[in-house]
Amino acid sequence: MQADATTLGSVGEVAALARVFPRLPTSTATLVGPGDDAAVLAAPDGRFVATTDMMIHGPDFRLAWSTPFDLGWKAAATNLSDVAAMGATPTALVVALAVPAGIELEFLDRFADGLRAACEELAPGCGVVGGDLSVSDTLTVAVTAFGDLGGRAPVLRSGARPGDTVAVSGQLGFAAAGLRLLFEQAVDESGAPDAALAAAAAEREPERIGAQLRPRPPVLDGVLAAVAGATAMLDVSDGLALDASRIAAASDVAIDLSRGAVGSPEALTGGEDHALLATFPASAPLPGGFRRIGTVADGSGVLVDGHPYDDRGGWDPFEGWNGAAG
Amino acid sequence: MQADATTLGSVGEVAALARVFPRLPTSTATLVGPGDDAAVLAAPDGRFVATTDMMIHGPDFRLAWSTPFDLGWKAAATNLSDVAAMGATPTALVVALAVPAGIELEFLDRFADGLRAACEELAPGCGVVGGDLSVSDTLTVAVTAFGDLGGRAPVLRSGARPGDTVAVSGQLGFAAAGLRLLFEQAVDESGAPDAALAAAAAEREPERIGAQLRPRPPVLDGVLAAVAGATAMLDVSDGLALDASRIAAASDVAIDLSRGAVGSPEALTGGEDHALLATFPASAPLPGGFRRIGTVADGSGVLVDGHPYDDRGGWDPFEGWNGAAG
Repeated sequence: MQADATTLGSVGEVAALARVFPRLPTSTATLVGPGDDAAVLAAPDGRFVATTDMMIHGPDFRLAWSTPFDLGWKAAATNLSDVAAMGATPTALVVALAVPAGIELEFLDRFADGLRAACEELAPGCGVVGGDLSVSDTLTVAVTAFGDLGGRAPVLRSGARPGDTVAVSGQLGFAAAGLRLLFEQAVDESGAPDAALAAAAAEREPERIGAQLRPRPPVLDGVLAAVAGATAMLDVSDGLALDASRIAAASDVAIDLSRGAVGSPEALTGGEDHALLATFPASAPLPGGFRRIGTVADGSGVLVDGHPYDDRGGWDPFEGWNGAAG
Repeated sequence: MQADATTLGSVGEVAALARVFPRLPTSTATLVGPGDDAAVLAAPDGRFVATTDMMIHGPDFRLAWSTPFDLGWKAAATNLSDVAAMGATPTALVVALAVPAGIELEFLDRFADGLRAACEELAPGCGVVGGDLSVSDTLTVAVTAFGDLGGRAPVLRSGARPGDTVAVSGQLGFAAAGLRLLFEQAVDESGAPDAALAAAAAEREPERIGAQLRPRPPVLDGVLAAVAGATAMLDVSDGLALDASRIAAASDVAIDLSRGAVGSPEALTGGEDHALLATFPASAPLPGGFRRIGTVADGSGVLVDGHPYDDRGGWDPFEGWNGAAG
């Protein structure tokens, strides 16, 4: 127990939640919000979309590099992107947060602010309808996001057809470049993450480091893609080539990417882009921010300019950065 | 990286998930199941219920006491109980699991078996429709559960009226007694949790220790209560007296409990019961396993046999057991 009433351990879960809830974004789908055993949400479509993702201190983020606002933002944004990738409009989130007991209540405020800002900017109308606050030695965020299909069929990974256009909305390779820059420029002489060095690096490279710490997935383009007739779609989170191979496998086709359209090698293999990769009928005008990067072909796997591409790269959390706190 | 192909770290997330998914229970509400960016679930009612809860190694469980099967069971059961407490039928779960990289794949199998057994026994038709598998130094389980109201209004905490009957379904005080027994009988000389001692204690006290490690909330009684006209309901997770005070506060009434009907002092204050506490019109026959334990009265707070009850007890995770691994 802390004597200091500014920490979670000193005020307890109930008081901490009472402080944080007013800061959270509200959902227009709420029928019963926080404060009962469960939330009740409108699903006028008769269906709903649900996805969950966990972020863990160490493997997924470092507190020396990510502010509490960044964490709230990223936890919301990455889940909103998965909803968007189904062609759905995000409606609500539930958020489970586990933090060390000695954490400052200020941390919770800023985390809530990040959740709210991400919802307001990326998916207006989406809000937090419930949650859970726990104590853990390892700071952990688990978000479950919901979406509404608005009467449309969900856009799966399995519908791409030979001849379709392959298109992407959002940045490729920026988040991976940002992470590389942090490892190169924001660690001290012992290799430990350093907050001041991270801030200086972010000044020099705001776009790339911003893409890593506060990704801006093109959430609203998910619905635009569905309306435009997208035949397949996914959230590019493990690198374009690896994720393209998932559409190829699920659809039993080949995905032929144009190296010139894709850009840098990092754009092919970098992780955590949270771009939307979709396939469209060749005749469909590309909606929103989508740009053409290739073609669906007969065959299997991923090609680049017609040649099989084997260096799939991508992000496996079990082979990535891990361990040291910071 | 482990060389041993029986650990999560050695086979990676994708292979581990491919191994685990066939063991998971399936949901009858599934329209799109695991394998895409998100699941799609039927919500024929036009609404859905959602609740989330996290379990963390240390504050919430010890691996020396809980088997992986127990953890899967309890993670499902506690969330199913929150859905039931709204008067809804549980339809589906999404499960985020974070484990040390060196954990045996066998652990994941048994955890999945526990999820399946709890769904099959407590809420048939409910299954796992999505999830996330991560690496963490701290074993963490985050479950989000969904439910269907079947056209009925949700049963909130706020509807109790003076004159209503207060009733409970499920065991009171058993889970807390089980935890006390584990602390008394299942720690070694240094105070560390001990698996062999826990097994011996469970042989002697199967009901109480079972209630702690594998709670059996009366999930189906949630819908029965709603159909019978319950005016308020909640999942008793923080002790009967504390949770009764929540109905009292939300409904602006007093809850007068009968000590004789409640039973032991531990039944008033123990945590983690996952019983259902509900109020019914005085004229309504009590459904399912509900038994009368008191009356709703004018006033505020919790009374026992007409006298104000102040020792609310209950479970605050920030004041509970914590820290040591085991």
